[in-house]
Amino acid sequence: LRDALFREYGIGAVRLPLPVLRDLSSILFSGVLDLDCILVRGADAWRVAAVERQGRLSAPLGCAVDLGSTTIVLYLLDLDSGEELASAGYENLQRIHGEDILSRILFASGDGGLETLQAEVRKVLNRGILELSRRAGVDPYNVYFCSIAGNTTMIHFLLGLDPSHIPKEPYIPVANHIDLMAPQCIGLKIHPNGLIYCFPNVGSYFGGDLLAGILASGMHRQDEIAMLIDVGTNAEVLLGNSSWMVACAGAAGPALEGGILTCGMRAECGAIERISIDPKTLRVSYKTIDNEKPRGLCGSGVIDLLASLFLAGLVDPTGKLLVDRDKRHMRNIDGEAAFVVAFEEESESGLPIYITQGDIKNLIRSKGAMYTILNVVTESVGVGLDDIERFYIAGAFGNYINPENAVNIGMLPDVPLDRFVGLGNAAGKGAKELLLRWEAMDEVNDITKKITYLEMNVRADFMNKLTGALFLPHTDRSRFPNVWKRLENLSENGS
Amino acid sequence: LRDALFREYGIGAVRLPLPVLRDLSSILFSGVLDLDCILVRGADAWRVAAVERQGRLSAPLGCAVDLGSTTIVLYLLDLDSGEELASAGYENLQRIHGEDILSRILFASGDGGLETLQAEVRKVLNRGILELSRRAGVDPYNVYFCSIAGNTTMIHFLLGLDPSHIPKEPYIPVANHIDLMAPQCIGLKIHPNGLIYCFPNVGSYFGGDLLAGILASGMHRQDEIAMLIDVGTNAEVLLGNSSWMVACAGAAGPALEGGILTCGMRAECGAIERISIDPKTLRVSYKTIDNEKPRGLCGSGVIDLLASLFLAGLVDPTGKLLVDRDKRHMRNIDGEAAFVVAFEEESESGLPIYITQGDIKNLIRSKGAMYTILNVVTESVGVGLDDIERFYIAGAFGNYINPENAVNIGMLPDVPLDRFVGLGNAAGKGAKELLLRWEAMDEVNDITKKITYLEMNVRADFMNKLTGALFLPHTDRSRFPNVWKRLENLSENGS
Repeated sequence: LRDALFREYGIGAVRLPLPVLRDLSSILFSGVLDLDCILVRGADAWRVAAVERQGRLSAPLGCAVDLGSTTIVLYLLDLDSGEELASAGYENLQRIHGEDILSRILFASGDGGLETLQAEVRKVLNRGILELSRRAGVDPYNVYFCSIAGNTTMIHFLLGLDPSHIPKEPYIPVANHIDLMAPQCIGLKIHPNGLIYCFPNVGSYFGGDLLAGILASGMHRQDEIAMLIDVGTNAEVLLGNSSWMVACAGAAGPALEGGILTCGMRAECGAIERISIDPKTLRVSYKTIDNEKPRGLCGSGVIDLLASLFLAGLVDPTGKLLVDRDKRHMRNIDGEAAFVVAFEEESESGLPIYITQGDIKNLIRSKGAMYTILNVVTESVGVGLDDIERFYIAGAFGNYINPENAVNIGMLPDVPLDRFVGLGNAAGKGAKELLLRWEAMDEVNDITKKITYLEMNVRADFMNKLTGALFLPHTDRSRFPNVWKRLENLSENGS
Repeated sequence: LRDALFREYGIGAVRLPLPVLRDLSSILFSGVLDLDCILVRGADAWRVAAVERQGRLSAPLGCAVDLGSTTIVLYLLDLDSGEELASAGYENLQRIHGEDILSRILFASGDGGLETLQAEVRKVLNRGILELSRRAGVDPYNVYFCSIAGNTTMIHFLLGLDPSHIPKEPYIPVANHIDLMAPQCIGLKIHPNGLIYCFPNVGSYFGGDLLAGILASGMHRQDEIAMLIDVGTNAEVLLGNSSWMVACAGAAGPALEGGILTCGMRAECGAIERISIDPKTLRVSYKTIDNEKPRGLCGSGVIDLLASLFLAGLVDPTGKLLVDRDKRHMRNIDGEAAFVVAFEEESESGLPIYITQGDIKNLIRSKGAMYTILNVVTESVGVGLDDIERFYIAGAFGNYINPENAVNIGMLPDVPLDRFVGLGNAAGKGAKELLLRWEAMDEVNDITKKITYLEMNVRADFMNKLTGALFLPHTDRSRFPNVWKRLENLSENGS
């Protein structure tokens, strides 16, 4: 078999686990010489995971996992055809121990806490694999490879590794590189000779989900300088190309995800995801997810809203609501100025949906942190934001952001808009790519070696630079020439 | 840890199993930075098998195994100092299913037979490791590596691989190369992160015990042409040097091991292991193992006996006992001519110990087969027996053979006697060497690639060549000039 694999496919070193040897011998000695076998890529050598008479093996399947702290998304792929057979998002059962990851890390430190969290992820994964297999009419026993992309903490939970040092200075996880492992190591119910791959981390705050995103973007194979931006409570940024990479992560605050705003909500059915305000009539138009009656504001809607308020002259560059400019939408709610997006009669609950002065301050702090991180990373390597030819936007709601509005509020830099590319679920995409292209495994290793990680929280110039970014779009006008041009055009037309 | 291992020891790729990662994190996060760790050599990369605070790990141990079909010899080594802590031979429990390996292969084909045989080897190994550890005052948990040298069939039993095709044409075992495996795969009770290495086979009749022997001889590293001869029921021969190797195995018959002779016995206490006959007085002198009263003839004694009978003119070149030459020792026993070595009053049982005419015919067939194999192998590569600068004699009794007498009967070629080197327990030596010198693993792989295996049983010229070798020492006088010189000297002195 080794000889045949080498002769026919040029595969030199092959591992043959004992159970496969036993199967192999009974087939060969029955006189059958035409075999099918399934090989999986180990760290250094291919491994024969199954062997059978020709035509008797089902197509090998792979499972790609985006191991999110809120939602765990699974994709079931036919590894022969590359076809995606099924996919679904499952609630991360760990949420009952805390919505945010810090409270789960705290829970993990309690008696049996880590084991509980580990069991919960395992349960979701096994249930998901079973369900997707049923839906696709295949057997989960034919899943030979799982590639898992998750942030550093989620991977620690999955593997039962102590996460308690991740959020503490100097932010050192137990492991960055995880060796390929047998499914039994973490109790996954796939083919016993299969393998589990976890995308490596670069640091506590630059996890495997980002690595998978880089893989999905392909920027590591390009000469042009590109930037990958993961927009979320933690802003994670990677700048570079095929020869160098600088990464950085910092807290942008949860405001951008909509979560902590007074009327904020997740991007679910009924969330307002698009907003525009006519600068002349000040008429507000919006669109909700699934076109249901509005229930709240999600991330992309919030960015649209702040940009529209700014362009319509309803907030000033410091973020102050100019309450006198519009009597209809401006209100005082619980002693605080607020702008109403959807009135009582429009909303599902019969209550108004609005943004408060405090919400706007939060938002500006988040967008300012986001921009400052991009700025610091770029300056650290002596590259101008203009030199960056492609901006890949990843993250939970990255795909839904209107880049023009993100530029208008000074969250993203003022570059030609066609440079922004939404990556969708970048982690899931990268995990799928790894299943279909084995070279990707080596590419990921190369990427981790190439990345220089800047610890943003400890950089002094971050705070200095942040100050200028706490304005709309920025105190430094020259950084946002197009935004100012748009503002001037609007005020000329409006006058 | 990876960085430190690379910086301090130049070890690049390191595998870290999950349990080790967990241990590692709890140690490092407790603030301890001085670590000891134990690495074992995997197929492509080192693997961290254990990690602890400095000074807390016991010395790593290794176990070398000579997996014989009769006796399983274990050696317990301290891998730090290289010291041998203990060793012992254990009876192979499989013997109750047949003394010879063929009857065990038959037994294996029955219901649960293979599992029984596997369980028996496992039991001997685990018991042996435990006992040697106790004797040396160490913990078997500190055994991190086992290297096992056995013939092809014994390795199949150990791994639970179907051996039924080993003795059938075209003599194909299930596997020649066995990947390194976890101890759990075969139920060995050593450190769970340790590894098990089985020496590979080259064919059904050229097993890992021979490979270990080659390693122990070091002939694969020399330019001089050498030959390794494993003397036994199956004669296994390897000819070559650092650049090429030809191997061959063939049935020499069990006579050489003493087993099937009328008064034959294993090389145990009371066995006659040395014999000489004064050509003038025809006085017989002998020596027994442990100097006990004689109980029978073992292999080395039998070779001495035949040579002495020949040199003393008590058998003719065809092997016929010249009964008229010595009335005292020659007898007719059960209607057959026989030569008595130890008389009734000398032996332990009170019965005479002798060799019969039939025994001598058997012996000559075996020695002839042995010589013919050497001859065929040598001619197959166009090398003369004279060109071989070193003959390594391995096998159960190889070490005890008197080379001069083996030459006198024409079993070994007539070359200067200092070219013969006894290897002792070559398989055990090779297994121990593998524990102490990791490069040996690569050397063994190189050897298997280098070996050309001649299937002796199917070579027509074997039978032709054998005819000449069924004489003492050979029909072709020119092949044994020194033997004839000795005979001439003796007859001159005797006359």
